Amino acid sequence: MRIPDALRELEWELPHNFLGLDEKGSDFAKARVVILPVPYEATTSFGGGTGNGPSAILEASRYIELYDQELDTEPANVGISTLPALSLTGAGPLEALAELRASYDRLLNAAPGRFVITLGGEHSITSAPVLAWADRLHAEGRQLTVLQFDAHTDLRPEYEGSPYSHASVMSRVQDRVEIVAVGIRALTSDEMRLVRRADNIHVFLADDIHPGDEWMDDVMSRVGQDVYITFDVDAFDPSLVPSTGTPEPGGLEWYPVLRLLRRVFAERTVHAADIVELAPIPGFPAPDFLSAKLAYKMIGYRFDRDLPRIGG
Amino acid sequence: MRIPDALRELEWELPHNFLGLDEKGSDFAKARVVILPVPYEATTSFGGGTGNGPSAILEASRYIELYDQELDTEPANVGISTLPALSLTGAGPLEALAELRASYDRLLNAAPGRFVITLGGEHSITSAPVLAWADRLHAEGRQLTVLQFDAHTDLRPEYEGSPYSHASVMSRVQDRVEIVAVGIRALTSDEMRLVRRADNIHVFLADDIHPGDEWMDDVMSRVGQDVYITFDVDAFDPSLVPSTGTPEPGGLEWYPVLRLLRRVFAERTVHAADIVELAPIPGFPAPDFLSAKLAYKMIGYRFDRDLPRIGG
Amino acid sequence: MRIPDALRELEWELPHNFLGLDEKGSDFAKARVVILPVPYEATTSFGGGTGNGPSAILEASRYIELYDQELDTEPANVGISTLPALSLTGAGPLEALAELRASYDRLLNAAPGRFVITLGGEHSITSAPVLAWADRLHAEGRQLTVLQFDAHTDLRPEYEGSPYSHASVMSRVQDRVEIVAVGIRALTSDEMRLVRRADNIHVFLADDIHPGDEWMDDVMSRVGQDVYITFDVDAFDPSLVPSTGTPEPGGLEWYPVLRLLRRVFAERTVHAADIVELAPIPGFPAPDFLSAKLAYKMIGYRFDRDLPRIGG
Amino acid sequence: MRIPDALRELEWELPHNFLGLDEKGSDFAKARVVILPVPYEATTSFGGGTGNGPSAILEASRYIELYDQELDTEPANVGISTLPALSLTGAGPLEALAELRASYDRLLNAAPGRFVITLGGEHSITSAPVLAWADRLHAEGRQLTVLQFDAHTDLRPEYEGSPYSHASVMSRVQDRVEIVAVGIRALTSDEMRLVRRADNIHVFLADDIHPGDEWMDDVMSRVGQDVYITFDVDAFDPSLVPSTGTPEPGGLEWYPVLRLLRRVFAERTVHAADIVELAPIPGFPAPDFLSAKLAYKMIGYRFDRDLPRIGG
Amino acid sequence: MRIPDALRELEWELPHNFLGLDEKGSDFAKARVVILPVPYEATTSFGGGTGNGPSAILEASRYIELYDQELDTEPANVGISTLPALSLTGAGPLEALAELRASYDRLLNAAPGRFVITLGGEHSITSAPVLAWADRLHAEGRQLTVLQFDAHTDLRPEYEGSPYSHASVMSRVQDRVEIVAVGIRALTSDEMRLVRRADNIHVFLADDIHPGDEWMDDVMSRVGQDVYITFDVDAFDPSLVPSTGTPEPGGLEWYPVLRLLRRVFAERTVHAADIVELAPIPGFPAPDFLSAKLAYKMIGYRFDRDLPRIGG
Amino acid sequence: MRIPDALRELEWELPHNFLGLDEKGSDFAKARVVILPVPYEATTSFGGGTGNGPSAILEASRYIELYDQELDTEPANVGISTLPALSLTGAGPLEALAELRASYDRLLNAAPGRFVITLGGEHSITSAPVLAWADRLHAEGRQLTVLQFDAHTDLRPEYEGSPYSHASVMSRVQDRVEIVAVGIRALTSDEMRLVRRADNIHVFLADDIHPGDEWMDDVMSRVGQDVYITFDVDAFDPSLVPSTGTPEPGGLEWYPVLRLLRRVFAERTVHAADIVELAPIPGFPAPDFLSAKLAYKMIGYRFDRDLPRIGG
Repeated sequence: MRIPDALRELEWELPHNFLGLDEKGSDFAKARVVILPVPYEATTSFGGGTGNGPSAILEASRYIELYDQELDTEPANVGISTLPALSLTGAGPLEALAELRASYDRLLNAAPGRFVITLGGEHSITSAPVLAWADRLHAEGRQLTVLQFDAHTDLRPEYEGSPYSHASVMSRVQDRVEIVAVGIRALTSDEMRLVRRADNIHVFLADDIHPGDEWMDDVMSRVGQDVYITFDVDAFDPSLVPSTGTPEPGGLEWYPVLRLLRRVFAERTVHAADIVELAPIPGFPAPDFLSAKLAYKMIGYRFDRDLPRIGG
Repeated sequence: MRIPDALRELEWELPHNFLGLDEKGSDFAKARVVILPVPYEATTSFGGGTGNGPSAILEASRYIELYDQELDTEPANVGISTLPALSLTGAGPLEALAELRASYDRLLNAAPGRFVITLGGEHSITSAPVLAWADRLHAEGRQLTVLQFDAHTDLRPEYEGSPYSHASVMSRVQDRVEIVAVGIRALTSDEMRLVRRADNIHVFLADDIHPGDEWMDDVMSRVGQDVYITFDVDAFDPSLVPSTGTPEPGGLEWYPVLRLLRRVFAERTVHAADIVELAPIPGFPAPDFLSAKLAYKMIGYRFDRDLPRIGG
Repeated sequence: MRIPDALRELEWELPHNFLGLDEKGSDFAKARVVILPVPYEATTSFGGGTGNGPSAILEASRYIELYDQELDTEPANVGISTLPALSLTGAGPLEALAELRASYDRLLNAAPGRFVITLGGEHSITSAPVLAWADRLHAEGRQLTVLQFDAHTDLRPEYEGSPYSHASVMSRVQDRVEIVAVGIRALTSDEMRLVRRADNIHVFLADDIHPGDEWMDDVMSRVGQDVYITFDVDAFDPSLVPSTGTPEPGGLEWYPVLRLLRRVFAERTVHAADIVELAPIPGFPAPDFLSAKLAYKMIGYRFDRDLPRIGG
Repeated sequence: MRIPDALRELEWELPHNFLGLDEKGSDFAKARVVILPVPYEATTSFGGGTGNGPSAILEASRYIELYDQELDTEPANVGISTLPALSLTGAGPLEALAELRASYDRLLNAAPGRFVITLGGEHSITSAPVLAWADRLHAEGRQLTVLQFDAHTDLRPEYEGSPYSHASVMSRVQDRVEIVAVGIRALTSDEMRLVRRADNIHVFLADDIHPGDEWMDDVMSRVGQDVYITFDVDAFDPSLVPSTGTPEPGGLEWYPVLRLLRRVFAERTVHAADIVELAPIPGFPAPDFLSAKLAYKMIGYRFDRDLPRIGG
Repeated sequence: MRIPDALRELEWELPHNFLGLDEKGSDFAKARVVILPVPYEATTSFGGGTGNGPSAILEASRYIELYDQELDTEPANVGISTLPALSLTGAGPLEALAELRASYDRLLNAAPGRFVITLGGEHSITSAPVLAWADRLHAEGRQLTVLQFDAHTDLRPEYEGSPYSHASVMSRVQDRVEIVAVGIRALTSDEMRLVRRADNIHVFLADDIHPGDEWMDDVMSRVGQDVYITFDVDAFDPSLVPSTGTPEPGGLEWYPVLRLLRRVFAERTVHAADIVELAPIPGFPAPDFLSAKLAYKMIGYRFDRDLPRIGG
Repeated sequence: MRIPDALRELEWELPHNFLGLDEKGSDFAKARVVILPVPYEATTSFGGGTGNGPSAILEASRYIELYDQELDTEPANVGISTLPALSLTGAGPLEALAELRASYDRLLNAAPGRFVITLGGEHSITSAPVLAWADRLHAEGRQLTVLQFDAHTDLRPEYEGSPYSHASVMSRVQDRVEIVAVGIRALTSDEMRLVRRADNIHVFLADDIHPGDEWMDDVMSRVGQDVYITFDVDAFDPSLVPSTGTPEPGGLEWYPVLRLLRRVFAERTVHAADIVELAPIPGFPAPDFLSAKLAYKMIGYRFDRDLPRIGG
């Protein structure tokens, strides 16, 4: 609620938004970043719980330091506005995704030029923002690259009877965008055949990512100028993020992921991003912190050039 | 798997079916009872987890004693066959319920005269078996009463955008059956108006259930000859079953529920039943045991007349 | 955050206030009830966690039905405004309680005539609102009775070196008010001697509360006209509320507590209340629901006369 | 460790013994009560964890008030000495029980006339102290009655290949003692036949225990003058004690159990007792508190006549 | 159960065997791999829970992709048959191991030439299959090497009174086989003296395993032609597998373990294997996935030469 | 308790002290190491639970092998005495720290020359032992360096209204000592400015710690001759220690920390140490083991020169 003026001076807790920012710092009209929570969960295979992802990330974010020592600045100063969580219809995944697409378009129109980070929820939600951006860019004669961090390619035509499952999300967008997928280590043979056949899908297996950052050059060579980042947290090694549906061993580590992200934001135009598939484990918040920090690092990298250094 | 003949004599664990019965005791061809697990979960409001209900009940059932001291007999001797869990399509609730209806009809045809207990999963699945039975009885000029144990009336026209939600399940069947609901203690004012207006809905509030069993006479006076029992485990007090989506204080106790059930089975024809909405809490199996025992008590009451006493 | 007008029509989740009420229903200017979360936790003996109590109660409250079938009305219509959580200083308990007292007085001045329910947090916070009310009533020549639901008398002069501990809270107010304590079942011999000696302390042991409501007449005979209710959730039996610091077996049940509360609200003037000492267990939300429902029942009883019946 | 004299005056935590008593109050030479932890766990069917029972009970006991308001006295004043936990051999259950028997005899000889409460651990350990007492009394021409609180009769000749399982413990002692079992609600038909046939086994089913205490008269009529109490905590309703291997619904409540125990201690000679089968659930300590309080109530009832009243 | 023919076409869940294979893919008669679950747990020191290991691994395996991108093939095509869990007698560890040995021999005779992976359960079970293979090879004049992945040497003559404990398992086989132990980082000084003295025990301390794979050459130089692999999951770093009895920091990582395993399977004859000591943590399944994947990687490496590539 | 002589020979569990040492090995008069548990918790921001840290570390330590393979010796032979936990006053943080300071001084006087490891508890407790040592060394004209392992600088002037918070602890000692902080990766811009300005604070960011040990040379160049080590376990990566208040990704690994510690103990005089901020997660003991092992490694490094090798 808005705090009544008569009670303003009391010592209230930090607001329940991303980073716990005050009204000014999170003012929708001025913020350059918008956080959109979409706690949608309909089809996750094992365990479930991604519906609790957004609120866990927001809660954890309130304990993150605003100062970023890598960049020597406070990225939060660009303004970060957190929307309430979007409730998608329970009428079925097709209807839910249509609703999300309409809501997302409306948000982009209401907030042109903002950097929107969508917090899932299951991975199926990604098709809505990706197609929204693909359409917008296409109208300008440009082509979107989806940079996908993930343990799975999510390229199945359908899964458990639904073409709108988390395991099919990249199939839903594949004919509209370039896909560069990093961290993959679980896929079907049909998916592998498709990957080998398709010109517009480039997969970097976790098995092939070695110490040293040479593999990042290869990734960058495949990423076009206009980028959407979808980050399934199961891309990380399960020692970092056990809180996900199908935790596959042999995943990505923290610092290499940051180095790649920093380079992508510096050398390309990243229009929007999402972080999905966190299924918080009660009493075990470390992965929620990591996911919140990941979002904040993206914001820092995105506005790195515009931010003043603290110096000292 | 079927154990290879060469390995039959080894000391295997109990089979993973209801009660851990051997092949003979769980032979589908001869069993008078069929357990149908339907771990469907699409629309639960808070927390979720009902998709794990059936496997938790089956696991717990393997530790139940076959002998029932109240009835002085072993009800398992009627034969109890446990089917694998039914996977419903992820295409949406309408499609999933249609699939369940078709599967259930097929099961009734394949197993005429059996007593089928469906294990949910969320409450929305109940409409499929109820309508299957309503249709069958209607063809014979008879009317089905649904005896509903529940904390909620589940009479909303729709919920979170879906008319097929767990909170709407009784709306889906209301124009086809008599409803007698026991243990209700959370409903909307619209639902209450509907209850007061409708001739075929009879609600017994948990608030009005007092020590002594007089209220059971009132319940029985509303229950017709042909009965389907749907048991949402949130009818029980949360001290007994905390493992459910919206645990409402002030619920039903164990022995009064048994006394009412015994009477219904003895004085009416119960065609089928379900137990739904158990959302198991990891490391806290007591409610899973209770739910499994509830199913076994129903079986004992259903075949009480046919079973030999142990005596002594 | 306030939802931007351009995005109003989207399907947002329920607001994160008590009961998830919309802006109108939770408007501070018009609401007759104010919920004040005080997640203060400094001295709890065993386990801790009461600092998570208010947010767990608020979260659970969003799933409560607004309609109350016992009263046949929607008590939420009186308007219920939820304040953000108050952050008390970490400088020490004396300073924290002074800060709470000042904030509480300010709130009463800003919102005269409202019914304030404070959500703890540990029991030590109770002394601030109790003394605020004792002072206000004393200025009018009236005497406050504190009706305390609790497993412990909390009458120690000090505990673990602090006179401001949760175990000493009633000592802090004892010379200013009448105390009527219900559900007590754990106290020191010194506390018992004090109880027997003091004219203004009346203890109703849980051991002596039998079926039937005769004991309630005795309670009512001790309760004066002006009442503050402090409800330590450990008054309930641990089967209902295991989520508390020292769960003592043999506690109160749900319906008798409601019957006593209804009578107190109907026959006395209850100026304010608090619910304290809930220490939520992750993954086990049933006691959080019960605590939220308890708050809502108090609101219903408080405004029972002013509320229209639904009828039907 | 013994605190060095130079450091005596510092503010140390309560000692880690039963009730957290100081050296004087827990001095083995003077204590009239001895607590013997036996965290033995070899054969529990489902889940396991009884090996953590003794330490959980001791930990919880440190938060119990020494004053008992029912008896208006501080039973701890009789002196209560807590031994370290006994480690039984892993060589097999036969060897482990022999080792326990030898240790228990040695303890009785070292501490003649003390009231020993053994804390399990699984129920199989009970045969050692029971046979120790049966032998001692038999030498004096007397007969021991075992008063068994339990959900199960534990009368199987063997279980999972072992005659020394928790499910067989009463079979191991049945030819040496009278058995009076209270709270039973799960047994095999063979066990029921045995119960009906045997003169020295008297079973009071939980199903038959109704409000009012008439059933206690029947129990008392079967209990001889010399008594050993074995308390399997699964005798309690799972709403009170979910933390046990096979939580059977429909169990005993707190106050009726206390009333029966008080009568037995007042009217018979109880030589020793045990509390077994608590399998603590991490983060859910309420049942550990209840078990600790149960032990303390036994001590109060045992020495009721010798203890001064606080009065006031 | 076998699904009745009339119900075959319904949408059933995946079968509850390793990888969720259908009847054909898991047909015992044709499968080249047999999974043998042995949930035996009698002597684990701290916490326990290894009895739940096999079922957790099997459950997790159902979500593993059949396609292996490292090998570009579907190893499951060799056929993998999962036996029900073996129940060992509770009569004591000696008897249990004898029973396991007899069962294992019978299995080898019934299924000659199959690759058997035993899933524990505690490590003590390993002696049965190891001695079975040592005897078989010895009859042909060959010598078995046990390649042991482990944090502990498990070379104690006895532990907690038992020579058949998990901590003694390698002592039970040491005079019959060569031992090559990898990942060791916790042992007694007696064990270290024995290691230094014994010609047939070769220990590779985790402390000495550095980046780069040179240490693998040393390991290979000690491994004979005929190999049995026993994999105690506590060999892995606790960040990967916290779910074990005594999680020792500084353990092995995923990819180096895979590289060593691939080499052993390619260059030696691995007759059988086991994976033991997983003690699943409820709500934390990542280590269960890892253990299941480990088993599947072993199968892939074992039949690498016989499997067709997917290509593309 | 001390075990009565008559019962000495029974098979008791390991004592509940650090490493489970017997009376001789833990005799306060002869031990060269003293473990001081201080389970103080008043101001932790998120979650809490550090009050359970000391007991979790002690419990886990009982399963650590006494033999250290890196040093080829049994460091426990120097004697390690574990004191009971210190109870600090609840009167406020200023009073609590004064009490701790007085107790710590008294301990140093009672046990001159011992190596004291304090187990927290929240980080705020560190100021007491640090200032005690700074004063002692200052009296001899020497200067103390605090080697701080931490994710946070803890240099805020005050936090949540208190200058004695865990987030301010280094501010409390900054004007008295040199600070060398390792593993830092979360700080405010004010803290960074202070670090850059202050001559006596040297921060090694986790971001800047690369493979290879060159950074350790830089650390050593800043560490003076007289050292106190304070180890906030959140310095470790959250994959190793998720059990802490604000788990920051990108932390330190096990072996590099050991290599640095070994060097500090070998080349400097470490007077005392503490390990703080462990907030144990129920059912997830791996971080408790790691913390216990960390303490034992420190003891080994501290007395490395005095200990005989096992050899072989």
